[in-house]
Amino acid sequence: MTEPDTRLAEIADLDDDRLARRGYPEAVYCAGKTAEQVRVIAAGVRSLAQVTLFTRADDDHAAAVRDALPDARWDAEAGLLAWPPTPPEPTGGLVVIVAAGTSDLRVAREAMLTAQYLGRECELVVDVGVAGLHRVLRRLDLLRKARVVVVVAGMDGALPSVVAGLITAPVVAVPTSVGYGAAFEGLAALLAMLNACAPGVAVVNIDNGYGAGHLAAQISAPAPPS
Amino acid sequence: MTEPDTRLAEIADLDDDRLARRGYPEAVYCAGKTAEQVRVIAAGVRSLAQVTLFTRADDDHAAAVRDALPDARWDAEAGLLAWPPTPPEPTGGLVVIVAAGTSDLRVAREAMLTAQYLGRECELVVDVGVAGLHRVLRRLDLLRKARVVVVVAGMDGALPSVVAGLITAPVVAVPTSVGYGAAFEGLAALLAMLNACAPGVAVVNIDNGYGAGHLAAQISAPAPPS
Amino acid sequence: MTEPDTRLAEIADLDDDRLARRGYPEAVYCAGKTAEQVRVIAAGVRSLAQVTLFTRADDDHAAAVRDALPDARWDAEAGLLAWPPTPPEPTGGLVVIVAAGTSDLRVAREAMLTAQYLGRECELVVDVGVAGLHRVLRRLDLLRKARVVVVVAGMDGALPSVVAGLITAPVVAVPTSVGYGAAFEGLAALLAMLNACAPGVAVVNIDNGYGAGHLAAQISAPAPPS
Amino acid sequence: MTEPDTRLAEIADLDDDRLARRGYPEAVYCAGKTAEQVRVIAAGVRSLAQVTLFTRADDDHAAAVRDALPDARWDAEAGLLAWPPTPPEPTGGLVVIVAAGTSDLRVAREAMLTAQYLGRECELVVDVGVAGLHRVLRRLDLLRKARVVVVVAGMDGALPSVVAGLITAPVVAVPTSVGYGAAFEGLAALLAMLNACAPGVAVVNIDNGYGAGHLAAQISAPAPPS
Amino acid sequence: MTEPDTRLAEIADLDDDRLARRGYPEAVYCAGKTAEQVRVIAAGVRSLAQVTLFTRADDDHAAAVRDALPDARWDAEAGLLAWPPTPPEPTGGLVVIVAAGTSDLRVAREAMLTAQYLGRECELVVDVGVAGLHRVLRRLDLLRKARVVVVVAGMDGALPSVVAGLITAPVVAVPTSVGYGAAFEGLAALLAMLNACAPGVAVVNIDNGYGAGHLAAQISAPAPPS
Amino acid sequence: MTEPDTRLAEIADLDDDRLARRGYPEAVYCAGKTAEQVRVIAAGVRSLAQVTLFTRADDDHAAAVRDALPDARWDAEAGLLAWPPTPPEPTGGLVVIVAAGTSDLRVAREAMLTAQYLGRECELVVDVGVAGLHRVLRRLDLLRKARVVVVVAGMDGALPSVVAGLITAPVVAVPTSVGYGAAFEGLAALLAMLNACAPGVAVVNIDNGYGAGHLAAQISAPAPPS
Amino acid sequence: MTEPDTRLAEIADLDDDRLARRGYPEAVYCAGKTAEQVRVIAAGVRSLAQVTLFTRADDDHAAAVRDALPDARWDAEAGLLAWPPTPPEPTGGLVVIVAAGTSDLRVAREAMLTAQYLGRECELVVDVGVAGLHRVLRRLDLLRKARVVVVVAGMDGALPSVVAGLITAPVVAVPTSVGYGAAFEGLAALLAMLNACAPGVAVVNIDNGYGAGHLAAQISAPAPPS
Amino acid sequence: MTEPDTRLAEIADLDDDRLARRGYPEAVYCAGKTAEQVRVIAAGVRSLAQVTLFTRADDDHAAAVRDALPDARWDAEAGLLAWPPTPPEPTGGLVVIVAAGTSDLRVAREAMLTAQYLGRECELVVDVGVAGLHRVLRRLDLLRKARVVVVVAGMDGALPSVVAGLITAPVVAVPTSVGYGAAFEGLAALLAMLNACAPGVAVVNIDNGYGAGHLAAQISAPAPPS
Repeated sequence: MTEPDTRLAEIADLDDDRLARRGYPEAVYCAGKTAEQVRVIAAGVRSLAQVTLFTRADDDHAAAVRDALPDARWDAEAGLLAWPPTPPEPTGGLVVIVAAGTSDLRVAREAMLTAQYLGRECELVVDVGVAGLHRVLRRLDLLRKARVVVVVAGMDGALPSVVAGLITAPVVAVPTSVGYGAAFEGLAALLAMLNACAPGVAVVNIDNGYGAGHLAAQISAPAPPS
Repeated sequence: MTEPDTRLAEIADLDDDRLARRGYPEAVYCAGKTAEQVRVIAAGVRSLAQVTLFTRADDDHAAAVRDALPDARWDAEAGLLAWPPTPPEPTGGLVVIVAAGTSDLRVAREAMLTAQYLGRECELVVDVGVAGLHRVLRRLDLLRKARVVVVVAGMDGALPSVVAGLITAPVVAVPTSVGYGAAFEGLAALLAMLNACAPGVAVVNIDNGYGAGHLAAQISAPAPPS
Repeated sequence: MTEPDTRLAEIADLDDDRLARRGYPEAVYCAGKTAEQVRVIAAGVRSLAQVTLFTRADDDHAAAVRDALPDARWDAEAGLLAWPPTPPEPTGGLVVIVAAGTSDLRVAREAMLTAQYLGRECELVVDVGVAGLHRVLRRLDLLRKARVVVVVAGMDGALPSVVAGLITAPVVAVPTSVGYGAAFEGLAALLAMLNACAPGVAVVNIDNGYGAGHLAAQISAPAPPS
Repeated sequence: MTEPDTRLAEIADLDDDRLARRGYPEAVYCAGKTAEQVRVIAAGVRSLAQVTLFTRADDDHAAAVRDALPDARWDAEAGLLAWPPTPPEPTGGLVVIVAAGTSDLRVAREAMLTAQYLGRECELVVDVGVAGLHRVLRRLDLLRKARVVVVVAGMDGALPSVVAGLITAPVVAVPTSVGYGAAFEGLAALLAMLNACAPGVAVVNIDNGYGAGHLAAQISAPAPPS
Repeated sequence: MTEPDTRLAEIADLDDDRLARRGYPEAVYCAGKTAEQVRVIAAGVRSLAQVTLFTRADDDHAAAVRDALPDARWDAEAGLLAWPPTPPEPTGGLVVIVAAGTSDLRVAREAMLTAQYLGRECELVVDVGVAGLHRVLRRLDLLRKARVVVVVAGMDGALPSVVAGLITAPVVAVPTSVGYGAAFEGLAALLAMLNACAPGVAVVNIDNGYGAGHLAAQISAPAPPS
Repeated sequence: MTEPDTRLAEIADLDDDRLARRGYPEAVYCAGKTAEQVRVIAAGVRSLAQVTLFTRADDDHAAAVRDALPDARWDAEAGLLAWPPTPPEPTGGLVVIVAAGTSDLRVAREAMLTAQYLGRECELVVDVGVAGLHRVLRRLDLLRKARVVVVVAGMDGALPSVVAGLITAPVVAVPTSVGYGAAFEGLAALLAMLNACAPGVAVVNIDNGYGAGHLAAQISAPAPPS
Repeated sequence: MTEPDTRLAEIADLDDDRLARRGYPEAVYCAGKTAEQVRVIAAGVRSLAQVTLFTRADDDHAAAVRDALPDARWDAEAGLLAWPPTPPEPTGGLVVIVAAGTSDLRVAREAMLTAQYLGRECELVVDVGVAGLHRVLRRLDLLRKARVVVVVAGMDGALPSVVAGLITAPVVAVPTSVGYGAAFEGLAALLAMLNACAPGVAVVNIDNGYGAGHLAAQISAPAPPS
Repeated sequence: MTEPDTRLAEIADLDDDRLARRGYPEAVYCAGKTAEQVRVIAAGVRSLAQVTLFTRADDDHAAAVRDALPDARWDAEAGLLAWPPTPPEPTGGLVVIVAAGTSDLRVAREAMLTAQYLGRECELVVDVGVAGLHRVLRRLDLLRKARVVVVVAGMDGALPSVVAGLITAPVVAVPTSVGYGAAFEGLAALLAMLNACAPGVAVVNIDNGYGAGHLAAQISAPAPPS
């Protein structure tokens, strides 16, 4: 039987230098990996002893991670595991995450947890789509306190333009795959966000809550790089 | 040399029954036609003696139309000719046309003129994109007076969702080809409008001011069909 | 355990102002929501005591809604629940819904129920695709009585052009995802409808019966907005 | 200086066996070739002494062809040259070519000339789009006499479905690049035709009048292959 | 309980005039219909007493059809039922169906059965992709006997160009959804066939064996329409 | 003749509140506007007396702007005018702009000028594509000093992933329309950037140097919003 | 019951000439074939007695192959069977296969096994994505020993550009369908690879490990063809 | 005035290490660069004194290059300049370049010149499209002598499959933008080539003759890398 270390070397090359080089820890993208591969990687993470996120995990991935890291935190709605389970003390500016609709919550939650585990204070606002403008306008005070706002929206992806037009801080826009046929699994929202008529909108991949949370954490970081 | 009537028969079959059948007159789409073809058709229109619009006309088309119909009205910005030159007395409900940006005016004007020549009262509102929400909100009184609102927008196409969410009347949304690369010549705005998160948005083709004006005239018509 | 109201606030912000602002009640889009989320929202709807539609619901969503609103009407074919179960007395003009083929019935039915619950009289005509023109031509009397016609079609999406060319009233066109490979899940029908050679065609999203019904109800509303 | 034959060999390998092998003569696609290349090929055609079509030719190509083949027929509207200039005596069944609108005439004419030079009798019908159904219905007698009908249409590409549903003969459908933005240079019509709800529709490339005329000539050929 | 006839009227309008008008009988497209809907239609077909094909049927559809038409023929590989079960005596020219690979057999078989039930003699040739040219070249005698050749191919869709370049008869090309990722469910083969460098290729929808068989039957029909 | 103010009201509604609301001044997108429209807007800007950028300007737009604002700075390569001509004293963190190739300089320059006029210190690095990694690696010291790095790249759009993987600061990625056919006018680079395998990449529209510069200025702003 | 040979002839035409003609043996693509079809083909392979690969096989295909060829080697991760089970002695140059991430291993393994069974020596390197450049740089010695390098990557597909820019040998790039929404099942990586800014990148189909391995074996073949 | 070296540093960073690192010299992609930028780069090349190709050059680019490098060779058809003007003595295996049609010659010539200047012997074969198979079959002897074959084709892109199926050597396939509408500027040929049913096809970007020639030179290089 192959030893764990050998097995790890056969499937992955953990980027143990990443924290030093980038200031942010490693993350493991679980989709497309077998549960066994994830288990071997999780065992490697334990040796590395650095904060690590496992993203896009399903129940089998989660079980595999907790086999190696029993105290890892598992958030099923966001499909995310974090180890060690407690996020660091927050530093830097406030991150506000806005979900246009209830169906976007899953992605919004992944963004929020990511930013929290990378060291930021976060607030989550739900169901404030542009079909009822008063809902977003009554949260304007909170939005204007943020160092960065993450806006998660499917369908027409119109919310980032509206929010960006109201505040000073940059907006990280996350298109979701929510919507009827011509949403084309998030393409409509993605294109709308790339074409936001208000400047200050940074777009990430469809349903990529992790990427949005990471980017927001960098933008709201406490101090410029040295 | 071929006689005019023969030449007309060789290139077009004017729908002289359309006014009776549909209640709205014929229109001639000039793009893709030679100036000579348009001239022959315009001569046929003169015999027909019905209100007629010539759309998507360039300068050569315009000269050809006015060769046959010297008193036709030519609106160069909208690329539209109307004959006879005076629109009918307005009936039915008010049509409000909204252009998100100055670059959308060309299409908005085509929509307005079409609705006017089909017998409606129209008001045009310009440059009220969602990047500065206060601009659309301060026109809310006018928008709420309309029987139908035509919203013309490029880039993220977000304005129809916002307007539709504020009023009772239906919105006719016209995507325009205005925008940077990933606008893909109006595709981004088109998809956003089809995915409008507020119900009550009717979408027409990219840059199709004529179609929007026609549809608006039908929606705001004075009485149900008999 | 979190109280219902708190839980509602965590996942949704019901637009209780919508009836006042727009004249039409709230609707809940169930796709992408968990059954538990839908149950919490349905409980909120009960407090709101306004006519509400739940669209794109599956069996689990339906059970969740009826857990909170036991007398809600469930139409499994259309994937739609309505509460209270009885539609209002009809006002305004007649809405005729036309389904090109039997496979389009599901979407046509969603459109019809939506228009009925928003207060319109409706008639449904089935299987009148353009491959056998006599079928649509023999329904011409009914089509000409409508204040608005909803045309539901997949494949080549040719029916809206044909219908719009025969009547005075506007046509709301709904592409469906019915068809062989190059239908591309409704894209072919969608593009055809956006390019309808007869003016007067308002396009909504693929398979979006709810949006079509809502738009038709607005167009056929009894009186202009005040 | 290189001799003509050498120069021909450097740029083309005329398929002199094609008439024997396929029963139809060679054609030269001019788009993308320089006028000089076309001139050298035309000189080679003169040696070959077979009926030859030059398609997609512009004025420079035409001049180059007539430099080598002075009596070649040049149809500028169709962008086509034929040599020798007189088409053969027609055999086989009747080919009816239908153009939905005046803007489609250019392509329809290319189809007609191709079928004529490949030996078929042809009739051309213009401006019978589905927006005014009565126009196509009053040509039904002619359509039912055809062995094959070529339907040329842009925009929604709805005409082939309607025609195919009315007749016994097969329909060759040619999408054109005519239309507003979401026609996407003929893609909308192409998809509609591929999804025709009436069986019996054979689709060729966008604006490909030559291909349609060739296919129609084969379908209406006088006798099965030996 | 609703009577059968009423139920049929609620879901379908059988085109009983089609045989008279077009010369070919009705077909029922089962995909997207419930088994119950198909059963009601099949009962209607029994009253109509005309040759009928049920296409794109799964096992449940098949059971429903045979509930109403117990002697219907069921070909599970092609997903097709025919009633009455015996095809008519063949007339007209020979139809040769060519499948590029074994994975294309399913669609090729649907085309063959359709042409047979519409009255043609058919021959099926399998696994003659262009990767091994000798395989198609050794079937050249048979191909040259055909009045029309149906070519079914996925992946690069190259076979129709090669076959069309070798014979006099027209080719009906059917792209299939067979292939690796960038086949995009048949799009690659579809585009290749529309761009066939040999003229004489008629393209139908992806995986549409029924449409190909119908078109082939029309092309190889015994006599021109009267 | 219409007075300037009236003419301005007919074509634009300058967002004079934007500086107060967002902290950044107005910009005028010139593409799609006539020179005359731009001239009228520039006159309005003079009254407003706020820092203003005119983007996507051609020579005619530039002349029109300088007719109203003679001292405006015109950068022809970037297609940008700024008024007043001198940028403000820089505050906040350093913005480093990286152009993958010489052909990307035009867009990179638009980004740099925008960030400068919004008050940031900027450094521009050119021709450091990933085909020669040593070129980007030897600029690592500069890259690590930045508060944000703007990466401008066409073709494969690979540079943002590489840069983001080496530094702590966020990367703003701008795809350009530079490249061979399958670059599809920037789509390839856009998709690559959205799929960057290193987190921390914020994507803006194709060739949108203005948007990138604006976003970079917000990210590197001196203090969180109050 | 049909005899095996007859049944084989009905579904496939094994290319027994391929080894002679091309120098490489036959492969059977199992996707889209029934287990029974694969079993019949495997029996035919046994008679042919040539090295054969079965690609894209699932468990049922594997069982069917081993029913006819009990000693065939089955690699479940790569979905590949090889018969006879032992690869030939390696000749020619070294093939290095590089997988950007763990999720790309499945495809990388298919490429490696294919090249091995076609007679090459192979080395596999895993998890060296460009997000951590040091990982690929520390394998530079091995990469520079290769006659050809196969690079397997999803997401942004950036690795082939980086590798090609560092070595003399050609790179075979295989995009995989790994990634978030806007990866569009491998389209993003495919386009990036086609637009690689370093020359020397040969692209194959998405997830097509077999094609990559075959191409690599040809490039690293021991001697030019005779 | 800025000195040449400074100006070079402002627009480009010549990869003088490339010959050492990769074994192949630098190339300058002219499209998207101004003539002045190209002139400055050409002056830098003169100092570098290495073999250099300038690709995608128009007449202005050519004049600019020859201003700095008067003896550079200019091939207008291929849009390519080479300096010094004489290619090196050929080593390694034979490269055969095949152009499917005359319209593909421009790209084929770019590939041939590139391979020649990188040190290979080349043969060019023209107009051997699959519509007349005998034309490619009669060149089989030459094709089988090649170490690699470059196949340049537009339209259906079928030729690489056919050629690859006949020979042992790998095929480099170059799609061109030649064809009717649904060629979509080379997309159809690109997809067909990626889906080639014969293994051994390496695809490069649309119209990218330079890339194909470079890849072919690497594949046919005389010896494995050291």
